[in-house]
Amino acid sequence: MNLILLEPSDFLSATQVRLTGRRQRHVLEVHQAQAGQQLTVGLLNGQIGKGLVTRLDETQLELEVSLTTDAPPALPLTLILALPRPKMLRRTLQHACTLGVSRIVLVNAVRVEKSFWQTPFLQEQAIHEQLVLGLEQARATQLPEVLLRKRFKPFVEDELPALCAGSQCLVAHPYTEQACPAADERPVTLAVGPEGGFVPYEVDKLMEAGFSPVHLGPRILRVETAVPVLISKLFY
Amino acid sequence: MNLILLEPSDFLSATQVRLTGRRQRHVLEVHQAQAGQQLTVGLLNGQIGKGLVTRLDETQLELEVSLTTDAPPALPLTLILALPRPKMLRRTLQHACTLGVSRIVLVNAVRVEKSFWQTPFLQEQAIHEQLVLGLEQARATQLPEVLLRKRFKPFVEDELPALCAGSQCLVAHPYTEQACPAADERPVTLAVGPEGGFVPYEVDKLMEAGFSPVHLGPRILRVETAVPVLISKLFY
Repeated sequence: MNLILLEPSDFLSATQVRLTGRRQRHVLEVHQAQAGQQLTVGLLNGQIGKGLVTRLDETQLELEVSLTTDAPPALPLTLILALPRPKMLRRTLQHACTLGVSRIVLVNAVRVEKSFWQTPFLQEQAIHEQLVLGLEQARATQLPEVLLRKRFKPFVEDELPALCAGSQCLVAHPYTEQACPAADERPVTLAVGPEGGFVPYEVDKLMEAGFSPVHLGPRILRVETAVPVLISKLFY
Repeated sequence: MNLILLEPSDFLSATQVRLTGRRQRHVLEVHQAQAGQQLTVGLLNGQIGKGLVTRLDETQLELEVSLTTDAPPALPLTLILALPRPKMLRRTLQHACTLGVSRIVLVNAVRVEKSFWQTPFLQEQAIHEQLVLGLEQARATQLPEVLLRKRFKPFVEDELPALCAGSQCLVAHPYTEQACPAADERPVTLAVGPEGGFVPYEVDKLMEAGFSPVHLGPRILRVETAVPVLISKLFY
């Protein structure tokens, strides 16, 4: 936890915050903070700054906060991701959020096992938890939007054109000539397939929607490795 | 498993291979292959090619192999990594190997918990297993060299100068002005600290050894995210 992420409901007054639960325990047990100490804090979707510990005991943490600095801006990037298996889903949500993705669309694909859609990790609260962990790691505050789309074809045909309008549209695909470029001045919409890749029909549908296939070299990367490699290539 | 990695001891003759255990079960249960089918194979530290299934049953897999293509070359990259916590160690070894790192030095640092050095995942066979999984994922064959160095100072003072001679030497460090560059024509030696970073003394010692500190932007990345981002920035 490189930043304590605050939500509006945590505030007792304009500058006074009271925390209980996970964040309070973390500050108590991991940071082993004491009254008088300053911690890095940030307001969800807001600024970052310092929180002076005014009280910390077994049940609560109180901070006097001063938010003075803009948080790192989110990347102008929508990530369209074939739903990964549950264990990898949690890590991938965290990593994508840490890296600064603005919007994540979890979409179905032929090679996505149907059972993956049943995981409790797709519940709104569970997704929110992973995103918060990602922001706390990054020392950032901008919460990405997450959309779930269980049907590939209606999503790509009916919704994607408006979603990706005006952006640089890329689909990661190992069997293509074009290496992944750096981002140009437009926002980016990046589609990443499941383990085993999008099937040709899916790649064709994305190409019809204006997506260019790009590869990452001769090595085949896991989704959780490919996502940071692609984001680095595009934005870092 | 995007490639079945063969070792010399698997060969019955110049072209005939018999497998039992993990690889045989994977081909039987996951690939659900049948006699007559062709699978992608590669020889450890050698070429890749095709294996024709000549026999597959509950106990063994036999392949007639033909190795015809050079495997993707390993990256001219030595990764010096402060020993991560055991769970992350396994993933990081796999990811680094998938990405093509030639040599991995696991080194101690102030912020590495002493207990991490006790993990069974540091045994030679356990490391080898993770590297093999990384190669099978990548469809590559070049096994990285892995060195364990439990003492930071003697490693950096006595061994590192020869190890990194002639290479571009970088240490990932959030508190610096210089962004991570692309690799120049030299090999790269890249040092990545533990969660929480190298302490100033360690950064100073690396700088004395010729390392330049480079950052990855305002977000603080986990080691497992930072490594693919850095490798992408340097080589992709």
